[in-house]
Amino acid sequence: MRIAIIGTGLIGGSLSLTLRAKGLATYVTGVEQNESHAKRALELGLVDEIASLAAAVQQSDLIVLAIPINAAEAMLPGILDQVDKQVVMDVGSTKKVICEAVANHPKRGRFVATHPMWGTEYSGPDAAVKTAFADKATVICSKEESDADAVELVESIYQALGMHLLYMKADDHDVHVAYVSHISHITSFALANTVLEKEREEDAIFELASGGFESTVRLAKSNPAMWVPIFMQNRDNVLDVLNEHIAQLRKFKACLEKENYDYLQELIEHANGIRRILK
Amino acid sequence: MRIAIIGTGLIGGSLSLTLRAKGLATYVTGVEQNESHAKRALELGLVDEIASLAAAVQQSDLIVLAIPINAAEAMLPGILDQVDKQVVMDVGSTKKVICEAVANHPKRGRFVATHPMWGTEYSGPDAAVKTAFADKATVICSKEESDADAVELVESIYQALGMHLLYMKADDHDVHVAYVSHISHITSFALANTVLEKEREEDAIFELASGGFESTVRLAKSNPAMWVPIFMQNRDNVLDVLNEHIAQLRKFKACLEKENYDYLQELIEHANGIRRILK
Repeated sequence: MRIAIIGTGLIGGSLSLTLRAKGLATYVTGVEQNESHAKRALELGLVDEIASLAAAVQQSDLIVLAIPINAAEAMLPGILDQVDKQVVMDVGSTKKVICEAVANHPKRGRFVATHPMWGTEYSGPDAAVKTAFADKATVICSKEESDADAVELVESIYQALGMHLLYMKADDHDVHVAYVSHISHITSFALANTVLEKEREEDAIFELASGGFESTVRLAKSNPAMWVPIFMQNRDNVLDVLNEHIAQLRKFKACLEKENYDYLQELIEHANGIRRILK
Repeated sequence: MRIAIIGTGLIGGSLSLTLRAKGLATYVTGVEQNESHAKRALELGLVDEIASLAAAVQQSDLIVLAIPINAAEAMLPGILDQVDKQVVMDVGSTKKVICEAVANHPKRGRFVATHPMWGTEYSGPDAAVKTAFADKATVICSKEESDADAVELVESIYQALGMHLLYMKADDHDVHVAYVSHISHITSFALANTVLEKEREEDAIFELASGGFESTVRLAKSNPAMWVPIFMQNRDNVLDVLNEHIAQLRKFKACLEKENYDYLQELIEHANGIRRILK
């Protein structure tokens, strides 16, 4: 299968590497605006060539949009204009806005809206790895809006990557990811700023930081070019969760202020319930 | 060296396993109030025998206090009463209160206050691992209050474990750990409660939760018996950091409410500064 990867960063690059390693991608055309990224993508063997968008769409069976979601949303209608039998999929972290952007497009059926639940806090071609995606979930949204053969092709790609397929409406997807992904990034960014703001002795942090700190703060390395558009597009859901999270933190604060350690114990025991979900 | 481990859980058990694997501990006596833990500690080979506190102190060269910090603080003066040339060390997450508890004890010099910056979110004998501690930092507090030979013994133990030694005052230690450890646990507990409270569709969380979520929430599995006393003893520092953290989260909230995405971009770029500290 000939594949076009639009955006040769962490996700696009990893997808390309993994699909080539599995023999599914016979030829990969990269589309990349950033010249140094384009050069690295070639050097790292993420793509066989870098070409224009029009050429890439023309010569590929599958076109993967792996750029920040605001750029993907803007570019998708123009790509569908050029598509005949090809399949176009995205891999973005929100689904409602992009689905709405092409809801009435005559070629809507060639587009499959997806979100593989894999990533790291790094970005760019050098962050791409060929062991990505396996054993994680991937979401296909509003499947009934896509042509059956397009969905089948995308399903076969994700199955080859070893991912579990889930199906949901775009709106529901956006609510769930606010809880299981977007809020984690906000708490991590805010925690990094808390520490950087108040703890001026960075050497002490550097020396003392152990696994627990690294674990809760590592997402704060994530790229704003990716995350600002996510928070914009999923604003209402993220605000709901963020308000609840601040309310939960205030409970801990009240326990400490009032020295109510019985209630603090209860709050922690309740939080331990996450063991049901994270094995 | 004959070692007494008081508390055969995650830290005490791991210390025992690691020191035995390295040939430093020739005989380990466990002191364990919880009968099922005592049984497991024997079964898992964490200790050679379970004995009374008095017998353990009597027959050991080094006594390690590895119980929750409130219990350690209560038990330490009585142990020092029974000590002759033996060395007593603790491994607790706060240092001010325990140092104050024995500040005027005639045997204060035999005690070395320490905090190895290693742990996991699990607890009990089954959580013990023999590959613990290596390449992490360990803190020795108020070294000048301890006898030189006692400090040397403890230093040699931590060096054998492959840890970096740091020295600081108990007060400074407690401020730093509020930033690099205690606040991470509070955010993680609160994040777990946020998700458990509002996201009733636990199946969706279970299916969608990826590495990022797991990373920020895993500390929420931590044991309240350990953490409530830490938050009690380090209350003032933790409240300072928690107030700052809530203020930082409110900045993200204000950005979303006012749709001020330029400032949101700035906040995330600032948070990216954590890359200087976490490689």
